[in-house]
Amino acid sequence: MKNYEALLSLFSKHLENYVASIDKREPKELYEPEKYILCLGGKRIRPLLSLVACDLFDENPELALNSALSIEVFHNFSLIHDDILDKAPIRRNQPTVHTKWNTDIAILSGDAMLVKAFDILTQSYPNQLHLILKLFTKTIIEVCEGQQMDMNFEKTKNVTVEEYKKMITFKTAVLLGCSLKMGAINAETTEENGNHIYEFGKHLGIAFQLMDDLLDTFPENNSFGKQAGGDIIRNKKTFLLLKAFEMASAGQKEILSHYFNEKYSGESNEKIKNVVEVFEQIGIKSICIKEADFHTKKAISHLQMINANDEKKKNLEQFATALLNRTI
Amino acid sequence: MKNYEALLSLFSKHLENYVASIDKREPKELYEPEKYILCLGGKRIRPLLSLVACDLFDENPELALNSALSIEVFHNFSLIHDDILDKAPIRRNQPTVHTKWNTDIAILSGDAMLVKAFDILTQSYPNQLHLILKLFTKTIIEVCEGQQMDMNFEKTKNVTVEEYKKMITFKTAVLLGCSLKMGAINAETTEENGNHIYEFGKHLGIAFQLMDDLLDTFPENNSFGKQAGGDIIRNKKTFLLLKAFEMASAGQKEILSHYFNEKYSGESNEKIKNVVEVFEQIGIKSICIKEADFHTKKAISHLQMINANDEKKKNLEQFATALLNRTI
Repeated sequence: MKNYEALLSLFSKHLENYVASIDKREPKELYEPEKYILCLGGKRIRPLLSLVACDLFDENPELALNSALSIEVFHNFSLIHDDILDKAPIRRNQPTVHTKWNTDIAILSGDAMLVKAFDILTQSYPNQLHLILKLFTKTIIEVCEGQQMDMNFEKTKNVTVEEYKKMITFKTAVLLGCSLKMGAINAETTEENGNHIYEFGKHLGIAFQLMDDLLDTFPENNSFGKQAGGDIIRNKKTFLLLKAFEMASAGQKEILSHYFNEKYSGESNEKIKNVVEVFEQIGIKSICIKEADFHTKKAISHLQMINANDEKKKNLEQFATALLNRTI
Repeated sequence: MKNYEALLSLFSKHLENYVASIDKREPKELYEPEKYILCLGGKRIRPLLSLVACDLFDENPELALNSALSIEVFHNFSLIHDDILDKAPIRRNQPTVHTKWNTDIAILSGDAMLVKAFDILTQSYPNQLHLILKLFTKTIIEVCEGQQMDMNFEKTKNVTVEEYKKMITFKTAVLLGCSLKMGAINAETTEENGNHIYEFGKHLGIAFQLMDDLLDTFPENNSFGKQAGGDIIRNKKTFLLLKAFEMASAGQKEILSHYFNEKYSGESNEKIKNVVEVFEQIGIKSICIKEADFHTKKAISHLQMINANDEKKKNLEQFATALLNRTI
């Protein structure tokens, strides 16, 4: 993150001003949740990517400040509504909006935030407003579709690895691509550069999500204290599980089916131990790493094709690597 | 409506094409509710107003088709989410989306519709996109604020008539103003004309809502069979009730307080009879009609200030009167 400290603090200041402006709005019940969730913290990866992309094309990164803010407001809106759907009581160690207030307020204040994300872009009237909005609406619609696919998967028996990859692409990865491309559009770079940086972000997002799946079941040594196997306990259809089902022998399939049957009511530790054993027999860890590597390399190849300052490209590559390795 | 049959059928065709395009989208679970609610019917007043306004300025009304569609999609999104907040099981004699599917799907498919409303505008790339979006985002934010105010009123003891009028202005009236002004912007008329037609729609909306309050308690002869006093039974803070409280004598206040106490568990018919008696003593019916008239006249005065074809202005005035008299 070191290379980007200045950009991050530029954004933090902009966000701070925005949050201060929330206090002036009425009715309070509609806007307090917005302030609350925006102040819960987070790494601000998406808005940072907008500034980084704008900066990459030798432009004043401040041009992308409102794109960055709009994306952060949208992202936080999606957290509020997703937490309702996921019935999640806690986010970042604090009660979720629908828990702290109630579901009605979480729905309505979320709606207002979604519109506010558009309002921030429209009021600031950037050059290329039309291009930015086209990208933004397309992306948000995909995020909704990804969220619905994820909900559907919970009730679907035979989800393929391909369907799963489409879901994580829509639900998570396209917003990273969008964040970068919006910054690139703010810098008024070429369409080609814009497309490459979008693909860079998208593949980075896919790789990130695959590593997320992996780390849940096979945590690194440094993720001290975190309980491994949460996804297994919750019967979550991850890359690991779907790929394992695809590759499993008849006997292995039987074991997996036993433990992932909704009616399984046995001990969690036994379930994790035996599922991980099958995963290890199949070699799912290295398959997942290989798949993530494939997308990381694809991301980097798009980055290389971008026509921009080499040192700045190198910085962005380092940032991507740090993101994947969870060192930021 | 007769004068506007051609415009209405122009819109119906456009809506039909849009609805047909929904079938091509995936996942189905996300988009079926959108198709369902758009096909439940309705008078399509708001989109019609966009076309009427565009037509008023001697332009091709087709220029406003996407504004009209965007507003209708937004309006239907707001019905889906409002029905969740209101716990309403039925809309237009059919189950509401959260009843027919579930709340999660109603939240998410609503979100997608809200974004789609922006997408329709952005993809069609009208002239003046920036002006249209500025108006649209401002309006939707006000609609959310109006909805929140309405929710707050349920738990607030002392709501003033002024606060109530602000709430109905935001929750209902500004969207009528916005529908008209968007059509006017599509026709690229002057800013002055745009502002007058907005104010016309806004005051028309306020008058409409006041008449709505009135008709719930004092139905016209022709609203055959409709049970009068629904708002009274549900303790709804309407113009009638708030104004009555403002004007009531100590004795009348006591009667109203008795019946609108949450703990009142007596007979509904008795409640309606005695509340209406107090309303009649105060003369609330004519006060409400006077207030609605005030806004109707204000609306008409703005219409008169518009620089446009007199016959078309006359048609719009007739339409407004018919709307207020519930003859369309």
